[in-house]
Amino acid sequence: MSGLFEANRSQELIQKGRKAKDAATILAKTTTEQKNKALQIMAEQLMKEQTFILLENEKDIIAGEDNGMSDALLDRLKLNDKHLQDMADALVQLTKLNDPIGELLEEWERPNGLHISQIRVPLGIIGMIYEARPNVTVDASSLCIKTGNSVLLRGSSTAIHSNKAIVKVIQHALQLSELPVESVQLLEDTSRETASEMFRLNEYLDVLIPRGSAQLIQTVVQQATVPVLETGAGNCHIYIDETADPKMAIDIAVNAKTQRPSVCNACETVLVHKKWASKHLVQLCTALRDKDVHIHGDETVQQTGLDVIPANEEDWETEYLGLELAVKVVEDVEAAITHINQYGTKHSEAIISSSVENVEQFLNEVDAAAVYHNASTRFTDGFEFGFGAEIGISTQKLHARGPMGLNALTSTKYIIKGNGQLK
Amino acid sequence: MSGLFEANRSQELIQKGRKAKDAATILAKTTTEQKNKALQIMAEQLMKEQTFILLENEKDIIAGEDNGMSDALLDRLKLNDKHLQDMADALVQLTKLNDPIGELLEEWERPNGLHISQIRVPLGIIGMIYEARPNVTVDASSLCIKTGNSVLLRGSSTAIHSNKAIVKVIQHALQLSELPVESVQLLEDTSRETASEMFRLNEYLDVLIPRGSAQLIQTVVQQATVPVLETGAGNCHIYIDETADPKMAIDIAVNAKTQRPSVCNACETVLVHKKWASKHLVQLCTALRDKDVHIHGDETVQQTGLDVIPANEEDWETEYLGLELAVKVVEDVEAAITHINQYGTKHSEAIISSSVENVEQFLNEVDAAAVYHNASTRFTDGFEFGFGAEIGISTQKLHARGPMGLNALTSTKYIIKGNGQLK
Repeated sequence: MSGLFEANRSQELIQKGRKAKDAATILAKTTTEQKNKALQIMAEQLMKEQTFILLENEKDIIAGEDNGMSDALLDRLKLNDKHLQDMADALVQLTKLNDPIGELLEEWERPNGLHISQIRVPLGIIGMIYEARPNVTVDASSLCIKTGNSVLLRGSSTAIHSNKAIVKVIQHALQLSELPVESVQLLEDTSRETASEMFRLNEYLDVLIPRGSAQLIQTVVQQATVPVLETGAGNCHIYIDETADPKMAIDIAVNAKTQRPSVCNACETVLVHKKWASKHLVQLCTALRDKDVHIHGDETVQQTGLDVIPANEEDWETEYLGLELAVKVVEDVEAAITHINQYGTKHSEAIISSSVENVEQFLNEVDAAAVYHNASTRFTDGFEFGFGAEIGISTQKLHARGPMGLNALTSTKYIIKGNGQLK
Repeated sequence: MSGLFEANRSQELIQKGRKAKDAATILAKTTTEQKNKALQIMAEQLMKEQTFILLENEKDIIAGEDNGMSDALLDRLKLNDKHLQDMADALVQLTKLNDPIGELLEEWERPNGLHISQIRVPLGIIGMIYEARPNVTVDASSLCIKTGNSVLLRGSSTAIHSNKAIVKVIQHALQLSELPVESVQLLEDTSRETASEMFRLNEYLDVLIPRGSAQLIQTVVQQATVPVLETGAGNCHIYIDETADPKMAIDIAVNAKTQRPSVCNACETVLVHKKWASKHLVQLCTALRDKDVHIHGDETVQQTGLDVIPANEEDWETEYLGLELAVKVVEDVEAAITHINQYGTKHSEAIISSSVENVEQFLNEVDAAAVYHNASTRFTDGFEFGFGAEIGISTQKLHARGPMGLNALTSTKYIIKGNGQLK
């Protein structure tokens, strides 16, 4: 930490960093059975201590109400019996997934007789930064335990009572499982200064995972020197090609926009081939309007005579995260690809088409984590992909791209066996 | 770029960033044959234009001499006929390696009928930051072309004439190959301010690769918001276990220290089991002294009566990068592992031993990119691993760990094919 004296640094951060490192050393050599046992006991303890957790959660809710927190945020912060049951169920599900640690990825022999193998190992110590969603405390802790990583949690000050309670219960479960209690730690100092120090704690942290608003993620990316697994915004498109089946295209567009509008894999702009538009644009827009979607349309869309807000440059860039949608008529697949590569956030992009050639071109040339043919963008999700668990969806190109399951929480190690080889 | 007005930004950087993006779009869909043809023509042009390149290089050498550049740096900066021939040969070798782009990594079908596949794609645009070694200009450009990435090069001001000349020749070769000339661009403004802007050019750059001194790499890590592929220092250890074959152990220690002391995979500390030490320590130290190695030893080593500099805490942390070596006697394999995990830089670590149990423990518990049994740490290298080419050695845990060949310059993309699936 150049420029900072030890004395000026957060002692809580340094101490927890050191303890996390010790815990990571032990976790790295913990068997799958021990890790699964710990997850099972965590599930049991969460159920056993639900009254305690809900009472502590209530303190955050009251403080939130007093401070004028919005209903949407309060809703995310609030825990109930069912939430705790769902968390416990997820922990039990996690015990059933394959443990990636120790997996042999490749092995080969060199002409000089060296035998090289590459195996999966834990990342080490993960710094998790998130907002007022106490369920992330359980999610992140359990995924890290399963992959042999220790985790330092930095949640929101508005969820501090909930997070302290949950981490206390998790740490008790770790103790009962004979795993290091410091495998999961919460930073109780939620000041911005200490968060900034955490983002630069390269001596202890191997990776940072920010989860939350675009603003939170940008803050971490801007300030961090620790490598970041960037999860991010989704300005996702559906392109309806000339040969798209009308019913399928409309169903997918409506599904991708309305099934859950607030999430990153929801559709934000529909691009329509001009020939398809001349026959089916009104029907598409009507179906969207029937689901209360406000349409921001280009000139052609405005000419339908339907209730359309004129779209401008800003609409092509906007992630509405609500019942609003931009609609634009394009010349051809080429124009659709150009638009997407210009305005998209490289998350999830779909083409609805019956043209083998256009589909191939779209899937190859669109630069995104997930590209779809004839399906809703809403499937970009660790569970829908069959990963069983998810720590987030990566929109960067390093390490992991798209839904991140357990494998994304691992690194690799080369093991080289020789019999005296010299260079 | 929050807080910076467009007008204040380096126009060269923005313009070259934009052009790199356009080039990357084309490169991503370029065939293996076209890319190999471009590499072949680059090799031919480098040979054809060697007089021009060497004359321009001479300008940098004269300026370096005038500015009192050290002989070691001048040696790295200076090009001759043989260097250019080696570069051309490496380009031809590169055409023979498999193209990773388009490789199918995994595919599976979901219960709802969605067919998911994961393929390798280029990273996109790579920012390469390096010091006064003109050969990196050719290395980085060719590896990026082979993997379908465009590259923005930022070399040292002390190599500007050499780099401009080489990039001019490369761009002419790209033109002859009918690939975008802007696939390879050099930032001619070598100011620190523009470099700092480049480290934060997230709108255009997908990844930064710093190559050079520890200081250069730290500057990039500290300032960058673009994801960094961190290559780094190597404080590598050889641990000689109780049961190590004496001749093998001594040969490996001498090789790992002296075969090329200035590189990151050279050995910096030898740890010796106390029982092995009681029989062979003098022989080990004598062999090292015979190769002009200055030994920094702990108390036991000092008691050998040989010419030994007393070692202190700092020695365990030092990457000497020269004919100096720290030697320490340890209780057992456990103590060796603890020492390495405390002082090592997670690069390359070796155990010399005949104990199956101790070898297993060492290979499992030492946290490093490459762990060796009975071989020299000097083999941590893309060519020695059989990768055929290398962009550097990663000492971080994200994306790629250890020697980075062509695969490290790729990302992945999920392709999902459906028949109207809705969520």
